[in-house]
Parts: sequence; structure tokens; C-alpha cells
Amino acid sequence: MAKATYSIGLDYGTNSVRAIIVDTRNGREVATAVYAYPSGKDGILLDPKNPNLARQRPSDYIRGLHACVKVALADAGRRRGFDPSQVVGIGVDTTGSTPLPVDAHGRPLADLPQFRNNPAAQAWLWKDHTGHQEAVEITDLARSSGAPYLEKCGGVYSSEWFWSKLLHCARTSPEVFQAAHSWIECCDYIPAYLTGATDLGSLPRSVCAAGHKAMYHPDWGGLPSKEFLGRLSPELAGLRDRLYDKAYPSDQVAGHLDAKVARKLGLPAGIPVAVGAFDAHMGAVGSGVRPGTLVKIMGTSACDLMVAPGGKHVADIPGVCGIVPGSVLPGMHGIEAGQSAVGDIFNWFVSHLCPPEFAGPQAHKRLTQAAAKLRPGESGLLALDWNNGNRTVLVDALLTGLLVGQTLHTTAPEVYRALIEATAFGSLVIIKRIESYGVRIDEVTTCGGVAEKNPLLMQIYADVLNRPMRISRSSQTCALGAAIFGAVVGGAHASTEAAQAAMTGLKPTVYKPRPQNVEVYGQLYQQYLLLHDAFGTADFSGNLGGVMKTLIALRDRIRSS
Amino acid sequence: MAKATYSIGLDYGTNSVRAIIVDTRNGREVATAVYAYPSGKDGILLDPKNPNLARQRPSDYIRGLHACVKVALADAGRRRGFDPSQVVGIGVDTTGSTPLPVDAHGRPLADLPQFRNNPAAQAWLWKDHTGHQEAVEITDLARSSGAPYLEKCGGVYSSEWFWSKLLHCARTSPEVFQAAHSWIECCDYIPAYLTGATDLGSLPRSVCAAGHKAMYHPDWGGLPSKEFLGRLSPELAGLRDRLYDKAYPSDQVAGHLDAKVARKLGLPAGIPVAVGAFDAHMGAVGSGVRPGTLVKIMGTSACDLMVAPGGKHVADIPGVCGIVPGSVLPGMHGIEAGQSAVGDIFNWFVSHLCPPEFAGPQAHKRLTQAAAKLRPGESGLLALDWNNGNRTVLVDALLTGLLVGQTLHTTAPEVYRALIEATAFGSLVIIKRIESYGVRIDEVTTCGGVAEKNPLLMQIYADVLNRPMRISRSSQTCALGAAIFGAVVGGAHASTEAAQAAMTGLKPTVYKPRPQNVEVYGQLYQQYLLLHDAFGTADFSGNLGGVMKTLIALRDRIRSS
Repeated sequence: MAKATYSIGLDYGTNSVRAIIVDTRNGREVATAVYAYPSGKDGILLDPKNPNLARQRPSDYIRGLHACVKVALADAGRRRGFDPSQVVGIGVDTTGSTPLPVDAHGRPLADLPQFRNNPAAQAWLWKDHTGHQEAVEITDLARSSGAPYLEKCGGVYSSEWFWSKLLHCARTSPEVFQAAHSWIECCDYIPAYLTGATDLGSLPRSVCAAGHKAMYHPDWGGLPSKEFLGRLSPELAGLRDRLYDKAYPSDQVAGHLDAKVARKLGLPAGIPVAVGAFDAHMGAVGSGVRPGTLVKIMGTSACDLMVAPGGKHVADIPGVCGIVPGSVLPGMHGIEAGQSAVGDIFNWFVSHLCPPEFAGPQAHKRLTQAAAKLRPGESGLLALDWNNGNRTVLVDALLTGLLVGQTLHTTAPEVYRALIEATAFGSLVIIKRIESYGVRIDEVTTCGGVAEKNPLLMQIYADVLNRPMRISRSSQTCALGAAIFGAVVGGAHASTEAAQAAMTGLKPTVYKPRPQNVEVYGQLYQQYLLLHDAFGTADFSGNLGGVMKTLIALRDRIRSS
Repeated sequence: MAKATYSIGLDYGTNSVRAIIVDTRNGREVATAVYAYPSGKDGILLDPKNPNLARQRPSDYIRGLHACVKVALADAGRRRGFDPSQVVGIGVDTTGSTPLPVDAHGRPLADLPQFRNNPAAQAWLWKDHTGHQEAVEITDLARSSGAPYLEKCGGVYSSEWFWSKLLHCARTSPEVFQAAHSWIECCDYIPAYLTGATDLGSLPRSVCAAGHKAMYHPDWGGLPSKEFLGRLSPELAGLRDRLYDKAYPSDQVAGHLDAKVARKLGLPAGIPVAVGAFDAHMGAVGSGVRPGTLVKIMGTSACDLMVAPGGKHVADIPGVCGIVPGSVLPGMHGIEAGQSAVGDIFNWFVSHLCPPEFAGPQAHKRLTQAAAKLRPGESGLLALDWNNGNRTVLVDALLTGLLVGQTLHTTAPEVYRALIEATAFGSLVIIKRIESYGVRIDEVTTCGGVAEKNPLLMQIYADVLNRPMRISRSSQTCALGAAIFGAVVGGAHASTEAAQAAMTGLKPTVYKPRPQNVEVYGQLYQQYLLLHDAFGTADFSGNLGGVMKTLIALRDRIRSS
């Protein structure tokens, strides 16, 4: 066996940062440490007057980095045969789009005394929706101007994304926008800090963040044109020159570990730091994503990641969140799709409609046990999984849930099962859409707590999707994905594929489609599609396309009156 | 004040019979007694192998008659000034269609030793659905032959009705059918017993039962032709001559109290007994039904009764259960419509989807209190009230419930309120259909427990229907209606209208429409109509008309596999 080397994966989540130290030969996680961001509520700065606002303090990221790397190293050090000198590289993943304003030296404005408590100077967390009006404006401009910028991101620009946030800042906090020399995604800021970069203009930026959230694509020469941005705001056009022209996949080196930072962390100075990427994308890598395998990261919502091999072009897929070369694996197109609510729907049911005989801390387990006794189709129920809108393929936040088929005998486990089935049908819509554009999907690998805890859900998905369902071996696939890129830039493997082959794995259980269930779910799916198209498509002839939106508009009018 | 006279109302319900003694001058109920049928489960003979079967023992009706009249008389006798000699007449209402086979002397076959335990020889209770296949056959024959027989009953013959039951008996229990000299509705059998009628051929039969359930109408000379019945079965054609040619409203005398029966009951021999009618129709009379007033009898389901003045003809109204001259008030057309589930839907929700913080014996009250705090439209929810199918105007048992608009924050009281609103919208569909055929409805009088117990429901109905809602003064409107006809045939009043004016009344509370709620519900109703037409109409262009039926067909296939 080759001499052991290790890589570090840094995984910046919504509420905490995790560091793991991984054996590059086999992916064994020899140490892990977590640090919860100390600021705000669970690490998030909120505004009681504005539910759309969600910010984070950049200094929490740096404190967390030092704290958890130290703990992880100490933990690993207690193992025989580990020495920090064996760490060959570092990879980073973060949430996104989570941009923050920086000064000319690459320092977060929020670190400067005059901006310390200015919310606009903090990191704008992915789920900050203050720019929802700006998102509509960007979508409208791209459409009306005939610009191609939305072709790779499903045709609709989101309030969660880079330019919506910057435009909103330029309009509502001009003092911050003007003071900012530039803006940087969190997944680029951490490598910048680690490598001591002060000239962010030369820092290799993440193609994952650029391509999925900032309308970057080589087809049109990188970010949107100055002219396009200028039609949104002169400030954005001015910023364009102080951003970047080219972005890179994570097998590329962002820089080398700064000596001062290395000393503080207790790591070898000069080891390479990989270009960062988003957590879900790294999670796909850590789950062994490859052509033909969809990686589904399933929690409160679901994120679907795929890769498509081939040349420079993959067809644009309407309604799919993003198709970006190199955003997941180098040399392949990364494809991202998702469902706005999965576990959240089951949690909603348990919180609000679960009768006493199933309620309590074991509610999910009890409902699942009872639901497992039912056969597909037996309840006569069918649901739409849109309680939190539809992210893919309808890209419409103003859709809502639907349940049909209830009688006077319909039970809670029947509804619970129908909700699980609805999320599986929603997943199948995504798969069919992507396959219809030439990207094959043969099997699904899941990660996330819902998949590990719920065999019934896994079997339903296998039967509905008619594809084998597996679970990633690691329970920290995002951090593992980051560590894989740390290993690649550190020279432990010749390619990302080789590193994946050595460092990732699957749990032994495989959920295989059961033919009789596949047949029944095939019929139910046809009915699901009828509901999907009728309620999700505004130009539907029966006018049902307007029902959910009319109800929401009425609701909002009443609530605000 | 005139000297007091009294009449007796006998009200045969599904599980028990009630006798009330009423002061004919003012409708005051001076005594009431209830007798629960002793046979079967809650008075109903069931078949564990066949959930469609529901029969009753005719002897339970007679035992109940004697038991509760005696108790009521004894109770009234304790009041100063009451004497049985003051009873001037008797009226009867029963469930229906509840036919039973009788021998040539008018005796129930079930009373004969050889048929005592034969289920086919008992009374076929209204909710016996064993003839569902025969109902389809009758509907098909009426349509294909161009016969007019379904024009007055909404265009679809029901498995609950007279001929479906008889045809099923002829086919599946020929020994009973052949032994039967004739068949009689329960609401005719009780007057026959009271008057000692042995020749049923000359007994004046109920036009309410004949017209609403047996396709009787003066337009085509009474019951369906021998030729039509013969195409269903020769046995039915043979029976046709041993039934009746003319039927009568309840202000007509069925006969006079038989001396032997009178002695046993302790009543004056020879007092007149009115022609019987169904419970809901009598309930409408006891609630003061008149042109412009819809009487809604609201319990687990809802029955809507109206009367239309005028000549021989009222337009046929598609989808309405029945339009029968004299079935409610003499000289007017009685119109019957209904909803298959109202209170049952709320009970279903409480039984199956009510979370612990609202559950328990006070669940309805707690949910109502929380729901009352919501404003119309505020929840963004909308439901269809079809958990038990749709009786009017779609006449389709294979429809199911639907809920749309749920988010991750939707609460149980919001759903509960949406279900109440759905039943109100369903009621408005009925009213609009009937009004569109020229029958005016200005106000609604309700009776039944749901109306009395739930002011929120009453206000929602007032706002949705945009009509004042009142509650009948009596809580025994069916029995009171029967007593009113007892008073009319007994000569205490010159007409049914005069008797109603003297003997019925309303509770003081009036629920008036609130303009701002009317406006919002008007908008929600438009959305309800979209769902109603899309899911309830098979030829809907978007094919949603097949969704509920496809789910049911699949469910039934799975359950039977």
C-alpha cells in the first residue's frame, strides 16, 4: 500500500462549518470537527421586519475555519500514523449564491469598523430573498433584449442568485455598494483567505458559482456584458471590470496555503488549495457522481446533480436550474435541478395534520410503518408536491400543494404515503425532462438524512423512478467532495475520476424497482402529469393554470388588508 | 282561544322511530318518545360479506309504533288538560326508498315463518346499494329507449331507489320475489297498518315516494309502463298490475285508524291517518317551507327541499334529484336536491387528520373557534366537497375530495374552514342550477344538529350563498311535518299552508350576508367552479374529468387483487 497522504475538506453549511481529514488512498474520514457560527440566530443575521433578509458575518467563517481545522487535526493526531505534514491539499465548498462585498485588498467590508453592523456589508446568504423584485427585472431584461444569459439556468433568474443581490444592494444600500471594490462568492472568499490573496482580480474563481448563479458561460465570453448590466444599473456595469473574465473547475489550484495562515492552522505552508464550489456539487462528487448516475441530496428540499460528458455543448434544458461546464466534474457539464420541498412536506404534515395515534417524536416512524403496509394505488390518493412552489421544471414559486382522491375513510398514513409518492413523481418529471434532452440517467445515488432513515421512501422512489436507488457510503459527502479536490490538487490522484474511484463508495443496500409497483406507479404518474400540466401551466385551456395563483393573490390581498 | 286539539307525528328514521304529540293551535310539542329498533346493528340488518346490504325488520317498525306512542301519550297525559280523545289525526314520515315485499293480505313476507330470516324478505333500507348494477341498467334503458322517466329525477336512476331494489331481488332472490303479492314503501306500509288496510290495491299511496323514487309522474300516467318494465324483467312487468296507478300528497287521507290498533294504542278509533311521505320532505314542511325558501336539512349529509308554485309543469332541472307535484306541499311541485356529505366531511377530518392540540371530544368546537379567527380567502385554500361523491348536480358517486393551495404553513383550522366553505360552495352550485330554471330562492331555513351547533358554519353559508340563513324553531322538524299533516287531515286547519303558519316557526337568530365576505367568496366561488367543472365533467378538454375515476378504478383493482 502506498504511503498515506491526507487531504482536508472544508464544508461551509448554512449554520456551521465542518472540517474533515480524509485518507486520500481510500476516502476514510480520520477526523471531523464542526463549528457553529456564533452570530445571529443559528449563524444567520435576520431582520424582524423583513422575512426575506438572511445574512452572515464573514468573520464567523474565518473563526470557524481555525477552530474546526485545529480540532480535527488534534483528533487525527491521536491516531497512530497521522502527521499534519502528510496533508497534501485543501478543498472548499460553501453555500451559494452567498456573495460578500470586499475592499481593494480583498478584505470583507464587514470587517471594517464603519460597516461592521451594516447588514448590506455582510455575506448575503443563499436564502436571502430581498432581491426578488430585481430577479424579475433581470429575467424580463434578458427575455426582452434577446440576451442568451438565461438559457443555461432554466429561463428564469432567481432572487437567490448573485446579480439579484448585488442589484438590490446597489439600489437600497448605495453607501455599501460604492464602498465595495468588488464582490466575491463565499466559495471563492475562503480560498482567497487561505492563500493570502490580496489581488482578487487574479484569483481563479469558481465556475460552479459563476456558471450556476452569475450567468457566466464561455459561449458568451464569461459574465454578462457591461452593456446588459448597464441597462440594469450603471453601478453594476462599473463593477463588471472589477470581477473576472474566466472561471475554473475545482481540480484547478486557486493558490497555495499562505505561510501565516498555515502556521496558525498547524498545516504545511504552500500546499495547494483547490478552487471552491457549492456544497451540493461537491456532495455529488463525494457520492461518486458520473455519467448515468443522478446524485440526489435529499433533506428538507432536494438537489439533483448530474454530469454529461462530451464537448463544449450540451443542449439547453428548459426549466433546469443550471448547465455549466466543469461545475461538478472537470471536462463535463454539470447539471443541477431540484425540488423546493421534500422532507419539509413530510414535516409539515407531521406538524399540522398528524392525528394523536401517530403524533409525537416518533411520528415519522409510525406513519411510515403504517404507510408501508399499503400497496401502490390502494389509497386512491394523488398529490402534487408543490407546498413550497416548484423549482424544476416549472420554476414557479407561486404554486401550491394539491391532494385529490380523499373519501370519508382516507387515513393519515394514506395521505403521508401520497405525499412521499408526490415527491417521487416530481423527481421523475425532472429525470424525464433531462433525458428528453439526451442526458441518460440509469440510476440514482442519494445522500442526506431522509434517504438513510426511510427505507419506504427509497423503495417508493425506486418503483416510481424505475431505477435502482443507492445511498452514498459517506454521511458527509459535501466535505468528502471538497477533500477529493484537495487530494487532486495535492497530487494524490491523477484525475478527479481516479480520486472518486478510490475515495467514494456506496452502502451495500440497493433498492431495486419491483415490476408490479412500477406498473401501478406508471399509471399514477400519468394522472400526476395531468395535474402537473393543468395546474402548473398558465396557458392551460381549462384555466386551471390560474387557480393556485388566484388563491395566493387573494390570500395576500386579505392578509395585507 | 280555540279548544286545544292535538295531532301525532310518527317519524321513522334510520335507527329509531319517534312519536310526537303536537298542539295543533301553535305547534307546541307536548310529548315526544323515541324507540330504537332492536334488530341488527343499530336497527340495521347487515351482511359482513356485502357492504352494500342494509335491511330492516318490518316488525321493528310496528313494535316501535306501539312503544313510543304509548310513552308519548303517558307523558302528555301528565300535562293538565291533555286527553287522548283530543287527538284528531296522525301523520307519518319514513326513510325512503325503503320498500318491503307483502303478501296478498298486505302482511310483510318477513312476518311469515318461512321468510323470517331471509334478508330479501325484509325492508330494503334506503341506503341498501345491492342494486347498483341494476340502477345502471335502468338508467341505460331509459336513455336508450327514449323513455321520459328520468326527466324528473335528474337523469340518473339511483341504486337507492325502488326499482333497482326490486329488480335486484327478482334476480337474486326469486323465491322471495315470487312469493310477494306486491311491494310497498315503508311510508305507505305504516298508514296501511294503522288503518288496518288489507287490500293494498285501494290504499292511497305516497306521491312523494312514487314520484321521487319510482319514476311515477302524471305526465306519463303514473308508474313506468309494463312494456318498459318488461324489458328489464318479466317479473317486474307482472308486478306492475299489482301496484298502483295514482299517488297522493300528504294532505289526503290514507284511511282511518283501525279499531283494534286504536285500542292497543289508546287513541280514538276512526281518526284520519294522512298519506305518508319521506322524512326530509316532512322536515321541510315542519320548517315552514314555501316558495322562495329553501329548507336545508343538514346532518352527515344535506338534503335541500324547495317548492315551486304554478300549474302542472315545472321545467326539468338536469342533475336535480326529483321534481314531483305534491311531494312536499299539495298543489306545488316539490324539488329535492342534496349533498352526499356535509357533517361527514368534518367528522372525517376530525377522525383522521386532527392534530393533538385540537383532538378530543371538543375537536369540532376547538377547530371551529380557531377557524372563526380566519378571514375568507386568508388561508389560500380551496376544497371540493366530494369525499362521498356528488349527489347534485353531477349525480356521480365516483367523485372524490380535493384540496388545493396548501403550503408548508397550512394549519388544521385552515383546512377545517376550507372544508366548511367547500360544502357551502357545493350548496351554491345547487341553488344556482335551480334558479337558472326559474325557481327563485331568496332565503334558507336550516334544521339539523350541524346548523344549531355551529354559528361559524351558518355565517359562512350566509356569506357564500349571499342569502339570509335561519334555523327552524323545532328540533324535530320531520316529526313536526308529519304532525302538521295529521292536523290537516284531522280538520284542525283548512290547508297545509294554514297549518304551517300556525304550527311552525324560526329561531330568533338570523345570519345575514356580510358584504365584504360576499365579495371574497364570490371570487373563491369562481375558482371552485373551475375545479368543479374540470374534475366533475368527463368530457372536459384537459382530461382532468377522468382523474378521480382513474384513481378509484386503480384503487379498486389493487384492493381486489
